[in-house]
Amino acid sequence: MGGDRGPEEIVAGALEARSDEVVPIVVGPAGLDTQGLELIEAPDVIAMDEKPTEAVRGKPNSSLVRACRAVGDGEANAVVSAGNTGAMLAACLLEIRRLQGVRRPAIAVTIPSRDGASVLLDAGANADARAEDLLQFAHMGTVFAREILDVAEPEIRLLSIGEEAEKGNQLTLEAHELLAASDLNFTGNTEGRDLLRRGADVVVTDGFTGNVALKLLEGTIGNLLEALREEITATPRGKLGGLLIRPAARRLRKRLDPDTYGGAYLLGLRGLAVIAHGNSSRRAIANAVRLAARGVEHDVVGRLAERLTDTVLESGPPTTPTPT
Amino acid sequence: MGGDRGPEEIVAGALEARSDEVVPIVVGPAGLDTQGLELIEAPDVIAMDEKPTEAVRGKPNSSLVRACRAVGDGEANAVVSAGNTGAMLAACLLEIRRLQGVRRPAIAVTIPSRDGASVLLDAGANADARAEDLLQFAHMGTVFAREILDVAEPEIRLLSIGEEAEKGNQLTLEAHELLAASDLNFTGNTEGRDLLRRGADVVVTDGFTGNVALKLLEGTIGNLLEALREEITATPRGKLGGLLIRPAARRLRKRLDPDTYGGAYLLGLRGLAVIAHGNSSRRAIANAVRLAARGVEHDVVGRLAERLTDTVLESGPPTTPTPT
Repeated sequence: MGGDRGPEEIVAGALEARSDEVVPIVVGPAGLDTQGLELIEAPDVIAMDEKPTEAVRGKPNSSLVRACRAVGDGEANAVVSAGNTGAMLAACLLEIRRLQGVRRPAIAVTIPSRDGASVLLDAGANADARAEDLLQFAHMGTVFAREILDVAEPEIRLLSIGEEAEKGNQLTLEAHELLAASDLNFTGNTEGRDLLRRGADVVVTDGFTGNVALKLLEGTIGNLLEALREEITATPRGKLGGLLIRPAARRLRKRLDPDTYGGAYLLGLRGLAVIAHGNSSRRAIANAVRLAARGVEHDVVGRLAERLTDTVLESGPPTTPTPT
Repeated sequence: MGGDRGPEEIVAGALEARSDEVVPIVVGPAGLDTQGLELIEAPDVIAMDEKPTEAVRGKPNSSLVRACRAVGDGEANAVVSAGNTGAMLAACLLEIRRLQGVRRPAIAVTIPSRDGASVLLDAGANADARAEDLLQFAHMGTVFAREILDVAEPEIRLLSIGEEAEKGNQLTLEAHELLAASDLNFTGNTEGRDLLRRGADVVVTDGFTGNVALKLLEGTIGNLLEALREEITATPRGKLGGLLIRPAARRLRKRLDPDTYGGAYLLGLRGLAVIAHGNSSRRAIANAVRLAARGVEHDVVGRLAERLTDTVLESGPPTTPTPT
């Protein structure tokens, strides 16, 4: 029941992703037209603007919480939702729970850069982070890049305000030290300017900076192409040129289209969760379901568990993250 | 002696900006060809990669430090430099000093957005900030928007990860409260996606986030236009279209050209300082000198002093900022 386009779009996307290996289950109210897909009944709905923690506590039988519970209970291998992101995070923590040793899960987003894809995390699961969290994010990103992006030895970089080790804020200075001392393939800091140029396979940052950066990237691409269109259509000559470059512009849009990936993983849980954009099209939903399936196939959760158990940090017991 | 293109470019820019009202003074080694402009002799040079604080302490007679001292001593009304940004910040703190009540100066950058200009600060003077600093940045940005961007009642927004007041990290949550309680025209949070759409006249953020955002914005514009060019030139049809849209693309580039503003103010000092890009062209330098002159004409420092004295915060004595 999440997603701005209504359940029909979600069902259509799930149907599109169905294959011999992928069997979507729909979670929603009784009577929902699932086009023949299995239905798990969940009478309640969490709206996009509800307060995450309260909504999740108050509506255990909402489609969102029930879908997460299906993973926690072993009924399903992964959950995909285009609903309230904060509620999804809270429901995942409650129903799927964190892997041992993980203090904070992270949202891992694929950045469709010019020369291939890279992964940015945390893209907004936690607004505040500690240096130890950033080290864990680097491990999570390494697993993601190997299993999902097919990079054998992923290169990790830390998002900061200069390439030199001594440039950054308190958080990145500490994280830089931890990363440099780790066995990760850490190659130093990266700056915002390289994000669309694929400066690294994995870009590590706190959820505040990551979320600002991601939205800035998306917004700038949209605004810039829009501004170019305005300039082009301002003159007859430009209009003709615009017609001629239309296929090129379409190819570029496709290269940079977030729908290609469909969604972002929430990493650090005992099960697989994919968060899709609220306004996901059926194509985006289908890709999100395929992304989830790929994660199951490649046992992303198992590999994360191995890595994170090996590298559990002596930073005290995990605290409860605040969904944002 | 700062700037990647050598002193000739700086002198040429200064000459271009010279007028009845604007009298550039060049600071550099004896014998420098100043094309008839007054020369203040300074034998030493601070390189782009020197450690700021050490360089400034060790080279009091470098062109950079000497130029700042000219403002501190009243020989000049403003200083413009395309040199080492960290050294410039350190030299300004040493030679021009902070206004009373200012804990941290801020770099105020004009963002050439689609529908006019807005100002973002801090763009990187301090990597770490407190909520009180962000409140001061908002006051500084208000003065900037009034005097430089000609906006009578500047609208202030706080860069965060959601428009709702309760979205953000610890820093922005606290800053949001301070801003909402102030007499500023604060209209809430803004997200990264609106930066190029001029979501506000003044966008307030800490120097780490601001610097990441600014570089991301610049890099994304560059990378995207480059990627579009690649797609366009991949086919004969696209090439023809590319020729036809060339004037439109040029207009867009001009609208978004950072050289239009030439530099960024370092605000919060007892004198006016403008930091130009290291690779500034003579046109950028000329615009930076004009920007400095406009700040003097509009008494930006005086207006800042009034505002900040009125709103001095009970946050203890100022501490020494760390240049980044």
